[in-house]
Amino acid sequence: MNIEETKIAIIGLGMLGGSYAQGLHKAGMCVIGIDIDPEAIQYAKERRWIEEGGNNPSLIEDCDIVISALYPQAFVDWVCRYQQHFKSGAILSDVTGVKRKVISEINAVLRPDVEFIACHPMAGREYKGIAYADPSQFTQANFLIVSTENNTGHAIETAREIATLLKFRTISLIDPEEHDRIIGFVSQLCHVIAVSLMNISDDPKLVDYTGDSFRDLTRIADINEDLWPELFIYNKDNLMKEIDQLICQLEQMHHLISDEDIEGMKEKMITATIRRRRFNQRQDHPDS
Amino acid sequence: MNIEETKIAIIGLGMLGGSYAQGLHKAGMCVIGIDIDPEAIQYAKERRWIEEGGNNPSLIEDCDIVISALYPQAFVDWVCRYQQHFKSGAILSDVTGVKRKVISEINAVLRPDVEFIACHPMAGREYKGIAYADPSQFTQANFLIVSTENNTGHAIETAREIATLLKFRTISLIDPEEHDRIIGFVSQLCHVIAVSLMNISDDPKLVDYTGDSFRDLTRIADINEDLWPELFIYNKDNLMKEIDQLICQLEQMHHLISDEDIEGMKEKMITATIRRRRFNQRQDHPDS
Repeated sequence: MNIEETKIAIIGLGMLGGSYAQGLHKAGMCVIGIDIDPEAIQYAKERRWIEEGGNNPSLIEDCDIVISALYPQAFVDWVCRYQQHFKSGAILSDVTGVKRKVISEINAVLRPDVEFIACHPMAGREYKGIAYADPSQFTQANFLIVSTENNTGHAIETAREIATLLKFRTISLIDPEEHDRIIGFVSQLCHVIAVSLMNISDDPKLVDYTGDSFRDLTRIADINEDLWPELFIYNKDNLMKEIDQLICQLEQMHHLISDEDIEGMKEKMITATIRRRRFNQRQDHPDS
Repeated sequence: MNIEETKIAIIGLGMLGGSYAQGLHKAGMCVIGIDIDPEAIQYAKERRWIEEGGNNPSLIEDCDIVISALYPQAFVDWVCRYQQHFKSGAILSDVTGVKRKVISEINAVLRPDVEFIACHPMAGREYKGIAYADPSQFTQANFLIVSTENNTGHAIETAREIATLLKFRTISLIDPEEHDRIIGFVSQLCHVIAVSLMNISDDPKLVDYTGDSFRDLTRIADINEDLWPELFIYNKDNLMKEIDQLICQLEQMHHLISDEDIEGMKEKMITATIRRRRFNQRQDHPDS
């Protein structure tokens, strides 16, 4: 990809789309911004993150790459409605956190002369809106290219170059089934836990009596309620299975405590400690 | 309390007991250390954290304050076995994370001329041993004085002075029932969750695909398996109730996802967000 000759459009200038625009502009690309909110467009223009922008889909007509930073359903709807504006041969990508359903829905409607390569930047925060855009968050984050057997090497390479320009910490290739299975566990189940924990109790005195553990477990309870229900439903089979597994583990712990089974509890704690330490090691030395 | 004329003994020089010894020595107190491990004693002596130390319980005979940093059952056993060595009028305190059972067991056996004031420093880490002792951890931590109606103002004041010398962030007074109820939720339930999460899956690839949420939720899965089963059993009624409440919330989320009930999910997420933000505000401004 010749950076100076490649034109890229970002659809949706929220926290994530805005961070993409800022990061890709810094990397030397010509960025076009599309958003229904004129203030988001103005915010990005004032900072020169985008060269042109507005709510007019014809702005993407000479773009080589189009990245949707919309919510999953809005992304599918946008493509259905405006895909006549894609340049022939363009690469379409996205940032959505669930993949199987998005990939099949997009590929079912997409023009044959445009290729969709699904991506999942594993960054994100509890804040909404372009005012929170900041590409420096990507340097500690993983980037997943969620390819299928129908993707070309060119599209995969383009996705990898975008992730490299945005300075993601690691870039991995994964298939949609494995992606959604793992995400159901490491991300969605954790959000379900945090929300559930905060829904148990409304005691305002808790904060005076808490150590770090409760703070750590509920940080992600400050959650975007417009986005997450959609993500949960798009991956409901996996997520429901993970919730069942967690309930099963909790019931086992309940029995061990009830029976005062010290050895049984120790066994689970030793397993947890070993796995968690291995996890730390791999994080510090990702290639080991 | 006249710091220079008060002699204090720490029973058990592990991570927490060692941090107490170091912090109280720095504050100008004369500290005596008791431990069955001669290496722990030597470690503390070399650093001048303790003036005297060893495995001989008669070392506490002229101590005005004795603080046990032993595990709960070991603490009760130690008092039963060696309480003839307490100085008459001494204050006995502790650091254990559960209180009702410890308080009733200690008070059932303790000499009438010694007063037990239960304390819970809400610090602690996943590491064991005096090599990890570091009183600087206390400046961000809450200190709970868990008093009963039988405690004198003198004992409560002594506990408060110790916590002040150790530079704890906040010092609160709480009764044993409320203490154990809250700890069952904010600390013990969180540890049960972390251990349960790590016991669900042994996929070593998880780390490549995870964002911050899984890391945050499982940090405390690296757990001291000698201590925690005992803490869980000492508070089993509260902890089992909290596990039940969490399972109930998880089952509700399961139903909402299964029914694709977006409004129901939103409601839980909004509740979680509001409570979590209030929690952040109170943390930043504890007096508001």
